[in-house]
Amino acid sequence: MALLVEKTSSGREYKVKDMSQADFGRLEIELAEVEMPGLMSSRAEFGPSQPFKGAKITGSLHMTIQTAVLIETLTALGADDHAAAAIARDSAAVFAWKGETLQEYWWCTERALDWGPSGGPDLIVDDGGDTTLLIHEGVKAEEEFAKTGKVPDPASTDNAEFQIVLAIIRDGLKVDPNKYTKMKERIVGVSEETTTGVKRLYQMQANGALLFPAINVNDSVTKSKFDNLYGCRHSLPDGLMRATDVMIAGKVGVVCGYGDVGKGCAAAMKQGGARVIVTEIDPICALQAVMEGFQVLPLEDVVSIADIFVTTTGNKDIIMLHHMRKMKNNAVVCNIGHFDNEIDMHGLETFPGVKRTTIKPQTDRWEFPDTRTGIIVLAEGRLMNLGCATGHPSFVMSCSFTNQVIAQIELWKEKGSGKYEKKVYVLPKHLDEKVAALHLGKLGAKLTKLSKDQADYVSLPVEGPYKPAHYRY
Amino acid sequence: MALLVEKTSSGREYKVKDMSQADFGRLEIELAEVEMPGLMSSRAEFGPSQPFKGAKITGSLHMTIQTAVLIETLTALGADDHAAAAIARDSAAVFAWKGETLQEYWWCTERALDWGPSGGPDLIVDDGGDTTLLIHEGVKAEEEFAKTGKVPDPASTDNAEFQIVLAIIRDGLKVDPNKYTKMKERIVGVSEETTTGVKRLYQMQANGALLFPAINVNDSVTKSKFDNLYGCRHSLPDGLMRATDVMIAGKVGVVCGYGDVGKGCAAAMKQGGARVIVTEIDPICALQAVMEGFQVLPLEDVVSIADIFVTTTGNKDIIMLHHMRKMKNNAVVCNIGHFDNEIDMHGLETFPGVKRTTIKPQTDRWEFPDTRTGIIVLAEGRLMNLGCATGHPSFVMSCSFTNQVIAQIELWKEKGSGKYEKKVYVLPKHLDEKVAALHLGKLGAKLTKLSKDQADYVSLPVEGPYKPAHYRY
Amino acid sequence: MALLVEKTSSGREYKVKDMSQADFGRLEIELAEVEMPGLMSSRAEFGPSQPFKGAKITGSLHMTIQTAVLIETLTALGADDHAAAAIARDSAAVFAWKGETLQEYWWCTERALDWGPSGGPDLIVDDGGDTTLLIHEGVKAEEEFAKTGKVPDPASTDNAEFQIVLAIIRDGLKVDPNKYTKMKERIVGVSEETTTGVKRLYQMQANGALLFPAINVNDSVTKSKFDNLYGCRHSLPDGLMRATDVMIAGKVGVVCGYGDVGKGCAAAMKQGGARVIVTEIDPICALQAVMEGFQVLPLEDVVSIADIFVTTTGNKDIIMLHHMRKMKNNAVVCNIGHFDNEIDMHGLETFPGVKRTTIKPQTDRWEFPDTRTGIIVLAEGRLMNLGCATGHPSFVMSCSFTNQVIAQIELWKEKGSGKYEKKVYVLPKHLDEKVAALHLGKLGAKLTKLSKDQADYVSLPVEGPYKPAHYRY
Amino acid sequence: MALLVEKTSSGREYKVKDMSQADFGRLEIELAEVEMPGLMSSRAEFGPSQPFKGAKITGSLHMTIQTAVLIETLTALGADDHAAAAIARDSAAVFAWKGETLQEYWWCTERALDWGPSGGPDLIVDDGGDTTLLIHEGVKAEEEFAKTGKVPDPASTDNAEFQIVLAIIRDGLKVDPNKYTKMKERIVGVSEETTTGVKRLYQMQANGALLFPAINVNDSVTKSKFDNLYGCRHSLPDGLMRATDVMIAGKVGVVCGYGDVGKGCAAAMKQGGARVIVTEIDPICALQAVMEGFQVLPLEDVVSIADIFVTTTGNKDIIMLHHMRKMKNNAVVCNIGHFDNEIDMHGLETFPGVKRTTIKPQTDRWEFPDTRTGIIVLAEGRLMNLGCATGHPSFVMSCSFTNQVIAQIELWKEKGSGKYEKKVYVLPKHLDEKVAALHLGKLGAKLTKLSKDQADYVSLPVEGPYKPAHYRY
Repeated sequence: MALLVEKTSSGREYKVKDMSQADFGRLEIELAEVEMPGLMSSRAEFGPSQPFKGAKITGSLHMTIQTAVLIETLTALGADDHAAAAIARDSAAVFAWKGETLQEYWWCTERALDWGPSGGPDLIVDDGGDTTLLIHEGVKAEEEFAKTGKVPDPASTDNAEFQIVLAIIRDGLKVDPNKYTKMKERIVGVSEETTTGVKRLYQMQANGALLFPAINVNDSVTKSKFDNLYGCRHSLPDGLMRATDVMIAGKVGVVCGYGDVGKGCAAAMKQGGARVIVTEIDPICALQAVMEGFQVLPLEDVVSIADIFVTTTGNKDIIMLHHMRKMKNNAVVCNIGHFDNEIDMHGLETFPGVKRTTIKPQTDRWEFPDTRTGIIVLAEGRLMNLGCATGHPSFVMSCSFTNQVIAQIELWKEKGSGKYEKKVYVLPKHLDEKVAALHLGKLGAKLTKLSKDQADYVSLPVEGPYKPAHYRY
Repeated sequence: MALLVEKTSSGREYKVKDMSQADFGRLEIELAEVEMPGLMSSRAEFGPSQPFKGAKITGSLHMTIQTAVLIETLTALGADDHAAAAIARDSAAVFAWKGETLQEYWWCTERALDWGPSGGPDLIVDDGGDTTLLIHEGVKAEEEFAKTGKVPDPASTDNAEFQIVLAIIRDGLKVDPNKYTKMKERIVGVSEETTTGVKRLYQMQANGALLFPAINVNDSVTKSKFDNLYGCRHSLPDGLMRATDVMIAGKVGVVCGYGDVGKGCAAAMKQGGARVIVTEIDPICALQAVMEGFQVLPLEDVVSIADIFVTTTGNKDIIMLHHMRKMKNNAVVCNIGHFDNEIDMHGLETFPGVKRTTIKPQTDRWEFPDTRTGIIVLAEGRLMNLGCATGHPSFVMSCSFTNQVIAQIELWKEKGSGKYEKKVYVLPKHLDEKVAALHLGKLGAKLTKLSKDQADYVSLPVEGPYKPAHYRY
Repeated sequence: MALLVEKTSSGREYKVKDMSQADFGRLEIELAEVEMPGLMSSRAEFGPSQPFKGAKITGSLHMTIQTAVLIETLTALGADDHAAAAIARDSAAVFAWKGETLQEYWWCTERALDWGPSGGPDLIVDDGGDTTLLIHEGVKAEEEFAKTGKVPDPASTDNAEFQIVLAIIRDGLKVDPNKYTKMKERIVGVSEETTTGVKRLYQMQANGALLFPAINVNDSVTKSKFDNLYGCRHSLPDGLMRATDVMIAGKVGVVCGYGDVGKGCAAAMKQGGARVIVTEIDPICALQAVMEGFQVLPLEDVVSIADIFVTTTGNKDIIMLHHMRKMKNNAVVCNIGHFDNEIDMHGLETFPGVKRTTIKPQTDRWEFPDTRTGIIVLAEGRLMNLGCATGHPSFVMSCSFTNQVIAQIELWKEKGSGKYEKKVYVLPKHLDEKVAALHLGKLGAKLTKLSKDQADYVSLPVEGPYKPAHYRY
Repeated sequence: MALLVEKTSSGREYKVKDMSQADFGRLEIELAEVEMPGLMSSRAEFGPSQPFKGAKITGSLHMTIQTAVLIETLTALGADDHAAAAIARDSAAVFAWKGETLQEYWWCTERALDWGPSGGPDLIVDDGGDTTLLIHEGVKAEEEFAKTGKVPDPASTDNAEFQIVLAIIRDGLKVDPNKYTKMKERIVGVSEETTTGVKRLYQMQANGALLFPAINVNDSVTKSKFDNLYGCRHSLPDGLMRATDVMIAGKVGVVCGYGDVGKGCAAAMKQGGARVIVTEIDPICALQAVMEGFQVLPLEDVVSIADIFVTTTGNKDIIMLHHMRKMKNNAVVCNIGHFDNEIDMHGLETFPGVKRTTIKPQTDRWEFPDTRTGIIVLAEGRLMNLGCATGHPSFVMSCSFTNQVIAQIELWKEKGSGKYEKKVYVLPKHLDEKVAALHLGKLGAKLTKLSKDQADYVSLPVEGPYKPAHYRY
């Protein structure tokens, strides 16, 4: 593979698909800025003091318009703008999904870590944990190499993606056998925003393998509730309407799972005039569903009467072939939970004689040969709000990304203080509250101020945090 | 102008843009059929008795997928399938919007009336009243010509569209000076589904000029409430999300007008998590808004605090330039009422130095040169659910079009009975109820049956109609 | 019977249960005034011009706190305050329900018509139509008497109430054989607010028997929609909670009938967190229910799974004994429609061995001897919002009663103009709108003003009315 | 004070106000049982194995109908029915609020601990923590007495209630100087359901003073969310309607605080048709409110435009005199948060010339002498759902009390195992889920079963618990 780094006229390195799109991108960025008040308020509040003065930030994030606003916020706060270039380069990941995907993706991830002789990065902003993974695997390989002279062997794994990671590290060893080791010494910390990435960090912590402090922003209230509940309440109907134009009112909708995502989906369909039935394994969530007027039944009991099925569980094997075989003609089946294995796509694809008709991209009708009835599957079973709509709206991403900014500021501010050890921390409550506060002005909301007297009465600091860690909101 | 009629292999005349799109069209028709239970139930219930045996039906309708399902329903009920061809030809109207629009549109409308030597049509299905207008103007011109020898002069009017109508009639007079007169003798009646078309019919009736019976299906409950209330409740958020991706939750939305369209829009935004403010001139509708928890204020009072503005009034000059000048940066302004004059597009377009940036088709940002703030106008001020989304969903159109089918059956059944004079009738209540009944099965709804004893107690027929004409639903 | 009229110190006649309650009554009246902005705005707007100067108004209304505010509004507008005394005397009707009810009730009704030598009344405010009935029967009897000398014979009817009416008229004939004839000559008109009273008026009109103009305020939008929809949306949960303390969330509620009352009840239970199932005979209302996400099924299909049953139909025999026999233990059964025959109380009361336990007044548990399960019937099958709560809130009554005031002003203003013949009229649309307008200020709502230019564009007067008669709101 | 213990015919001790009310109480208990499925399911599931065989349970709970169902559930599970008697005696606490309240209350609490020579109790069910407090103070005093011979001196404190506690202990010391010490040796644990009681337990734990294990059921999801959110969503409108009959639709409601109680109250008023404004100090809760369409403003900004004010904060000094002075005439002011100090009752009561008019018990109008406007204060500023309605419905209490039962079973089952040390524990997640599960059947809800394969995939046990401790629901 020979991917060449390009340079802007000012000498900044990058690799994107088509630089001629930059003007249109700028237009979209300007629109997004208005909808991302948390980031813009951060610029206004923290910009003057330049908290990232001297900091080199990198990371591996899905490159979207909203991500661009995040990057420009970090640079506005003083971060070395190589950071921006680094992530801009990562936009290669976008087109990488078509074609040499994984190769290109990891090439970008690795390039983003290369700060040349000045050394870097200092901080990592992660979304999925791949940059962190690469460094940890790199350090492991370098230690092994130092001890035994052994280099990583891509053939040692069946996992196609991990083969690429090992190849990158192996090739790096030849150039500099201490590259990742030096890097981890320098890194102040990482902030990570996905469930998957956070899970990996906790495993590293449990194994004593974590090389630098990590802040889990995925479990901030302003991330988890907003992303899952409000985000999906918005984007489920968006995806349904764009993909199928089906009227939601009058339909029977089944929402599999009543966690935050399921709560958002059930609310959205109820508000659209559908009758909603919930499936749940957890009695507490089931009881919550009942208290909101939703019927709670197993999928088996309702599979032949419903019109729209949505999986939100984060688990696998939720809607199986035998369910789909019993559905009404043109029932809509989609997933807004996690991977495409919430729906038995394999069973569907391999059913003898099944006929797939693509109505439009991301909207397929699968017809069974015996019954001649079909079902409509969105986004090939993958996340329908990403596949059929445009994912979460900017405002939701503003909540998530402001968590990243605040976490990065915290890590950098405390870099020498010893406050953060090589462990995983949730964002401190007062910073979670700060993220919310940064969004209120744009929405016209004004807070009430706690008086000293009141604060004493309830044993709280005047400036917060106002709730105990276990508070459920 | 030389538009040539083409013929299918079976000899049926047509004129469409691209016959190679037919397969994709068939696929979309099949999907729509499942969502149009009223039409499909009509086929099942009335098909065997072929109520349109021998009837020749024509009309001028917006050619959409849903219209195709209507046409095929009429033919399934026995109508001469020339009817279908006639309306298919009318699909020229679709591409006519780009280019020689009006000329082509009226050419199609006129062609659809030509049934050759066998004579026709017998019935008209109208959507806007243009076919009816053409016949009435034709008859008027033929009478004048017979009396005075005068032919219509297109130059006698400033109205570009009416000039075309007069030219068509003038040219027709040379071929057959009794064409429209013979036509009106034959026509059993028209059913009309738009506010505009119905208004024209009532004016003709008032002037004693109506040439055949007309059924106003626009004011059926199953048309007006469903189209306006439920249709817009669905398609407003659809249009907003497709055009702007803006999060509705947390925003302040202003709905101008609280009629059925406004009620649907206000409900949709409230359900999406917005705070909704209503403007109204009618104290009753205003009081209804207040009872639902909406603030009712004049636009002046809220123009600078709201994020999304929607006009639903059916009137003009609702959001004026001076309002737009005071709005927040990137406030969204759109119209789902009637014409683009609900919003002062002219004032906006001619403001000195205003800068228009097209973010994507149908989504423009207009920036004022002095304030550097801009507003986002959808669909150039025209109906945003048509411009930015796909209009009403099939289910809503099924309600409207089943009214057309039922009205056509009624007109044809009563053609010799004298039941309908040359007047405008609303669809009888029991047929309005029939339209609703034809939709219930698909939605899993089962009616309760009134007993004879109960019916006597409340002085109603067992089989309905169940409500007096003035009932408000 | 010897009921004696009493006199206040100022000489005003009255007959109430206990004059010592007057202070408490005044307190409640003052509270109600704040919640009856339509009446108070009427005083402010019309008071100065004293539109009832010289008018003598009487009527037969349920005597409640809200009625008192109505009466005092009429007097504030210049009506002879004997009017107030007349209706105050009628408050006897309240205690008449316990004991010699009907006798006392009609004695009061008759007394309220007696204005002594000065003659009267001029106008009638009716609620049920009894004053109007008495006059019409009186006139009929006097004509018969003049012609044949025959006096009415109470024994000629089985109807206990009508026997009393005939006796009153018979006794009156002895005193003055032209009493009611003179009265009807003087009466300018009646305004009537109940479905029952209006029905009777239309029958009189159909029979050519109506003796003076009548305004039907029952079918004003500001009466029917507000009383039925918003009134019941408020008072159904109020009644349920006071009677049973049962949690509405999580329950299955069945609403029989989806007219305005049913719409209010279904909305209230849905909002409380119940799952609502609707029963309907009318396909249009059924389709509306489905569009709001309610399941529509016959009672038979759900009788054994629901927790709360509400009848709202205005018909009889809705919930029968055989239904109640299949219900879950302690299912709640109630009626908010019209009479107690919506529920088969007779079947229940006469079921062999059934055991009635009064939990508290208006809340009874009826246990079947074989199954030992019981159901809880509210208000003995009568209107539960009256029986178990306090009926409609003052605000709703303000809407209804402002219709009365406005109708009375209209009748009196047009008394010599010939505008109103001896027919039944609905309140003109612009007055219906006036009623709404009189309520907006208190709620902080501000109307938008239609410009002359806009008014011309939509062919409406600037000052309204803004909707055609058939508009459905 | 000479309160005498009475005995039933079977020899069981008790002290209640009026034993003749027992039949009516039994009727109410039977009704409540149907609405308390968690307790009834507990009887069905655990009854056969008699988990409390030999256990002596006592406690100090508000004696309500629902508490009776709890007590009878404990006895049905094998607990010594002296337990029941003990708590029955405690019903004295109810009437104690009128008259010699505190004396009688603590006399009852102390009597409930007296199991005679057989010794006891084994377990404590607490609601406020008073039984636990008494024992801890008793032990402390006995230790001091043993060491120094000093007895507690009621005069040593200003707190009237604590004086009584000290007097009881002092008197007890004379009878048995080891009474509480022996008692604490025997006690297996306490379960506590209130915020106040739990706070005290955590303080004891922090001070190392806790004498036995404690389970905090207040923070179970099935307690906190259900009690606060669903309970108040039900009982706020209940209280408002019973106290004032004011129509909620069309009003402006202010909810101070948007925690779980505030969320329930805001939802209830929104659903009733009010426009709701929220005040908050916590930016996260504020942002949640905005996402639901509520305006968030400080009380100062809205105090003169709102109609209904509700405090839900758990803090003091929320609505002050200066706020009340600016309110609209007859604005309703109430508290559903914690103590009456959320509203500045003292400021109101002592305002010179203020006039209090009691409209009905628990509903007062306070009129200011200068403005002649008044406000309506409910329940004298105390919890309005208790004062003006009947508190939480049985179903909500079933959730809370099933937590108590499950916690008691857990404590007793583990009594020798060492699982619980002298610390405060929240109820383990799987038991919280158990509480929910015990309620689902009655509501017709059916759970989906997690397969072994799925459970492994998400690293959860098949039988739960299904969520991590920090999950927010």
